[in-house]
Amino acid sequence: MAQAAQAAIGNSEFDRDTAVVLREPGVYDALLSPGWTILHAVNGGYLLGLLGRALGDALPHSDPFTLSAHFVSASTPGPAVIRTQTVRTGGTLSTGQASLCQTDADGREVERIRVLATYGDLDGLTGDIRTSAIPPALPPREQCVGPADAPGLDLSRTWAILGRLDIRLDPATVGWALGAPSGKGEVRGWFSLADGRDPDPLSVLATVDFFPPTSFDLGLPGWTPTVELTAHIRCRPAPGPLRVAISTRNLAGGFLEEDAEVWDSADRLVAQSRQLAKAPR
Amino acid sequence: MAQAAQAAIGNSEFDRDTAVVLREPGVYDALLSPGWTILHAVNGGYLLGLLGRALGDALPHSDPFTLSAHFVSASTPGPAVIRTQTVRTGGTLSTGQASLCQTDADGREVERIRVLATYGDLDGLTGDIRTSAIPPALPPREQCVGPADAPGLDLSRTWAILGRLDIRLDPATVGWALGAPSGKGEVRGWFSLADGRDPDPLSVLATVDFFPPTSFDLGLPGWTPTVELTAHIRCRPAPGPLRVAISTRNLAGGFLEEDAEVWDSADRLVAQSRQLAKAPR
Repeated sequence: MAQAAQAAIGNSEFDRDTAVVLREPGVYDALLSPGWTILHAVNGGYLLGLLGRALGDALPHSDPFTLSAHFVSASTPGPAVIRTQTVRTGGTLSTGQASLCQTDADGREVERIRVLATYGDLDGLTGDIRTSAIPPALPPREQCVGPADAPGLDLSRTWAILGRLDIRLDPATVGWALGAPSGKGEVRGWFSLADGRDPDPLSVLATVDFFPPTSFDLGLPGWTPTVELTAHIRCRPAPGPLRVAISTRNLAGGFLEEDAEVWDSADRLVAQSRQLAKAPR
Repeated sequence: MAQAAQAAIGNSEFDRDTAVVLREPGVYDALLSPGWTILHAVNGGYLLGLLGRALGDALPHSDPFTLSAHFVSASTPGPAVIRTQTVRTGGTLSTGQASLCQTDADGREVERIRVLATYGDLDGLTGDIRTSAIPPALPPREQCVGPADAPGLDLSRTWAILGRLDIRLDPATVGWALGAPSGKGEVRGWFSLADGRDPDPLSVLATVDFFPPTSFDLGLPGWTPTVELTAHIRCRPAPGPLRVAISTRNLAGGFLEEDAEVWDSADRLVAQSRQLAKAPR
């Protein structure tokens, strides 16, 4: 993807579209952008970015360490209000709650997502690293494939979000796009925001839900609405492209879990997430 | 462990100690039993059992599908109140919130844990099973080891919970008890409640936090307080012993994740959980 001047953290599509405006203490106005939709659905990762930004403002700590979201109804582009509550503040960690609500056609306020989150200071983390986790083995970025490499699949008109994401998938995990899913339930690839903005904890929180669902690789095209998603942000990401690996081990009873790992350019595990989603029918 | 007549679901230590009494709509009184403590700390899994029971009563659906808990202060044995709120009710899923609170020495109500959970009907689940997950490879139960096999480590006086759990660990993952942790961050074994009560969704919810922490196997004895724990219950467990595997891949910056899988006697993956905990200092 040809890039003009690289956007900066604080001055990018993601930052503008996840801006929140303080209405009164703990309450924020937001505008859900149509730019982060798939068909008519607002992407869950983008919504986490909005909620995460509001909580980072409302709590005394600014970095999400762990955020759990339960998705209770489908969001639509347009105005929204985020109501936060401080559950507990401490020296190193603070816990808060937030609800994102929209007004329906009858003028009633309808809740879309409720989250609980614990925030801290990622720059304050020190101590041992004992890790057996290793970054996903990916071909070089130039050998990975994006939507522009599949001209027969022109999704850009219906998947507005694709204009904002620079996803390059490992060719070993894109068989589903050619009618030959691997059945393994794995999708992995390189990730940057399309305008070149470097990752920060909020964009990483969103990134865990930006990739095509593993159900595609299981041979199940269709919608996989998220019921619950929890993400842990383990360190502040280094500048540069991220590597993302998502996997599903158990689809059963009409539900599947989807685990995501996000690695930064310094080979550190930046985020781990798991969601429970409804399997396509 | 010699067992007398087997306790039944609904009439067992776990059921009696997780009983909740409706005080007014959505509000439940509970008594945190000293029987589920490690030193002076009340076990997190036991607390999830209490909160899960209250939400199962308050919501129109009775089975926890996914429950996310943020632990905000340390619980103590004694009275507690659980305040629930219904976030959304639907045909197949309902979402609720609950807070467990206790009164401190100054007479103030202090919140211990807040949870968000989505409930449904596990008996209503149908559809494909596509799973690459396999049960942990464990030696037969008779070849696994419990606290009674380590008489030098008499924990039963300080770890009251051990009297309620029948844990038999794979000898390959108990080196830490003999001063030789493997460093892999893995603990696995057989599990039953000590009184022989069969598992149900609530006891499985508790079971995800009943095992010794993986940090022991990483060579880090000491306390690993849970910051957040999310569990997904994927099916109703079959009667009989469970197999539990817990693992940590990344300890960094003073925190570690701990993943648990619970398998039933029918070789089905009953629960998946992940917690973020503080690493021992």
